[in-house]
Amino acid sequence: MKEVNACIITIGDELLIGQTIDTNSAFIAQELNKIGIWVKRRVAIGDNKEEILNTLTEASKENEVIIITGGLGPTADDITKPTLCEYFHSKITIDEGALQNVKDIFSKLNKPLTGRNLKQAEVPDNCTVLPNLRGTAPGMWFEKDNVFYVSLPGVPNEMKGLMQNSVAPKLKDSLELPAVVHRTLLTSGIGESTIADVLEDFERDLPGHIKLAYLPSYGMVRLRLTGRGSDKEMVDQEVSVQFEKMKPLVAEWMVADSDISLQQAVSNLLKKLGKTVATAESCTGGYIAHLITSKAGSSAIFNGSIVSYSNKVKENVLGVKEETIRNFGAVSEQTVKEMVQGVLSCIDSDYALATSGIMGPDGGSVEKPVGMVWIAVGNKNNVKAAQYKFRYDRTRNIEMTAQAALTMLRGFILEQETLKD
Amino acid sequence: MKEVNACIITIGDELLIGQTIDTNSAFIAQELNKIGIWVKRRVAIGDNKEEILNTLTEASKENEVIIITGGLGPTADDITKPTLCEYFHSKITIDEGALQNVKDIFSKLNKPLTGRNLKQAEVPDNCTVLPNLRGTAPGMWFEKDNVFYVSLPGVPNEMKGLMQNSVAPKLKDSLELPAVVHRTLLTSGIGESTIADVLEDFERDLPGHIKLAYLPSYGMVRLRLTGRGSDKEMVDQEVSVQFEKMKPLVAEWMVADSDISLQQAVSNLLKKLGKTVATAESCTGGYIAHLITSKAGSSAIFNGSIVSYSNKVKENVLGVKEETIRNFGAVSEQTVKEMVQGVLSCIDSDYALATSGIMGPDGGSVEKPVGMVWIAVGNKNNVKAAQYKFRYDRTRNIEMTAQAALTMLRGFILEQETLKD
Repeated sequence: MKEVNACIITIGDELLIGQTIDTNSAFIAQELNKIGIWVKRRVAIGDNKEEILNTLTEASKENEVIIITGGLGPTADDITKPTLCEYFHSKITIDEGALQNVKDIFSKLNKPLTGRNLKQAEVPDNCTVLPNLRGTAPGMWFEKDNVFYVSLPGVPNEMKGLMQNSVAPKLKDSLELPAVVHRTLLTSGIGESTIADVLEDFERDLPGHIKLAYLPSYGMVRLRLTGRGSDKEMVDQEVSVQFEKMKPLVAEWMVADSDISLQQAVSNLLKKLGKTVATAESCTGGYIAHLITSKAGSSAIFNGSIVSYSNKVKENVLGVKEETIRNFGAVSEQTVKEMVQGVLSCIDSDYALATSGIMGPDGGSVEKPVGMVWIAVGNKNNVKAAQYKFRYDRTRNIEMTAQAALTMLRGFILEQETLKD
Repeated sequence: MKEVNACIITIGDELLIGQTIDTNSAFIAQELNKIGIWVKRRVAIGDNKEEILNTLTEASKENEVIIITGGLGPTADDITKPTLCEYFHSKITIDEGALQNVKDIFSKLNKPLTGRNLKQAEVPDNCTVLPNLRGTAPGMWFEKDNVFYVSLPGVPNEMKGLMQNSVAPKLKDSLELPAVVHRTLLTSGIGESTIADVLEDFERDLPGHIKLAYLPSYGMVRLRLTGRGSDKEMVDQEVSVQFEKMKPLVAEWMVADSDISLQQAVSNLLKKLGKTVATAESCTGGYIAHLITSKAGSSAIFNGSIVSYSNKVKENVLGVKEETIRNFGAVSEQTVKEMVQGVLSCIDSDYALATSGIMGPDGGSVEKPVGMVWIAVGNKNNVKAAQYKFRYDRTRNIEMTAQAALTMLRGFILEQETLKD
């Protein structure tokens, strides 16, 4: 079966000066992959007519599907729509459905409707309009010389709705697609090189249509097997066989055997056990609580957190002894252990974790340099602490601390639950 | 003066299946812009030799600078280095400096050094090696037919160090560069269309070498003026004149007159006043505390947060009355007001904010649908609350709630400080 290739084109000067991080392309790529379309290339270009026209022409030579986002807003720097008209030799017309949608949105928001807003209902006359239920700019679907072109608004939430509800189903109906199967597992606490040594023979012996990729990030490495073929069920089975072969080889470091985050793996474990966790966060400043609560359903396993950024909060709310901080410092084994005990008594929970460290760029000393962190995990009977030294910038140090704390917590929970048996 | 154009090429299958969000390109684009290099295009391609070779050839036709990231890791799917050797007709050689760097890193980490790690010191013999102080893969600088090519590791922290310490200075030395000046201001609480109407005349009257861009995100709109020219000082002055003309037109909604985030604007305001803030977070789950503490120096204005995800924590830690929750619910004006009072008494602070809402996708009802949020802000004398209705997915609802709460807090602080005068 012939591979169906796609190109994702994102439009907007903000992408080229680096003011905006492009999250749309990753989402679109995921959705296309799910239905067996291979993204061959992602291109970001500016709000420039010639660039847009050239990129469309170029992309149409190598791809059957072209997804375009951005530049559909109501302001003067948004030139995607007139440029598409030129490319497809279209005239502008008002789409009645899109017009009604704009009117409905503004009446719901109780905001005055301007001429600029009404222009959002203008579309090229030779496109199929894809209704946007989340915003004013509709999606537009074109066909030209056996290539499908889809133009979507750049607002992530609107693009996502259109992609899932209209574009993916319509592409599935319009194309004969091969099967692509991904299986991913997550490891923690082992480097990419070491894991590659462990998997050297396994990787060499993989059949040609199944590939292994290493995706490292923040102390974690994801291992992804990707298989392709014409028969979905067969590829699925072949990838599964290889995946089950790989799992025992990395069992020691495996945190999850699916493509989920570490916090999701910890949440799933707690849910399975019917247990809860609380966090006492100094240097992570609420980031771990945020990671846990960013997933729906977290209230079943999470009651709350004390973000004790100042020493006073550590003492007054968490009950860390004043002399502990005086004698050992806020970044110490003793302090994080008392933080765990403190948060367990103020927030009723089965497990707790605590973090305290120097995230930088300032605040370090010779004995306690930037990047030094103490983490404790525990329950009512038992508290464990460990020291870490990270050597990155503030953002990454916070991220690394959160991942290390969740990994430690997961290990502690598994240990405690085994002890019980 | 001739414009110097650049193309950023990111390599890795993980970008094409959407498993990784590319943050490197935005950073590189920012750094290039700062020194007057215009990024014309960003391209993401897979770990595929032919694709890499074609993209390099194609990019070299239109750009004087090509920055490549990714694919330099020690595993089999990383093929950038051999492909660069083919493109530049190089032989592989060991770089002694890079080798020493690999050895130093592993001895510091106290980890065993494998042959795979040592391979990181291999470089094409006709490149200039750019030392990587943060990791094992060095940067590589090539020149061919008046085009500069730079290959950098994909690990963001390593790429950033190389970009700032080696690549940007070396490009400045090697090219005659035009001046590019950006000035940005941040607005909150007004839509892109409305602001575009307000600025219609201003935008039309801008000189040709200065452009206005609208960058909307999460209830905020950034307005960016970009000027270009040969004389840095002159462009700077011209952009400043226009920027000062624009400011009074949007004064009502302006939160900051520089390219900073809302949380940074709130932090700066508190720092200027010598005041502190605490947060009591239910639906935002620690996210606001995280936003505030993600910037260095936040301990001067932030003592801590109570993440009261469960009602018990609202009652036991924050002292919200049990009957308040019973009579009005956790998502109510009364509850968030008591949360503000509660957090002010448990965490000594001048100001506080509280959030409680239904972020979705589940948990909504007819009276309290998904997206409904109550936010309160206050100090010891005065507490104000407001209801919001967001209509997005969980992630965006959390983000919108945080932005709304910080905007409300900022307004409240300004009001209180004016009352005092």
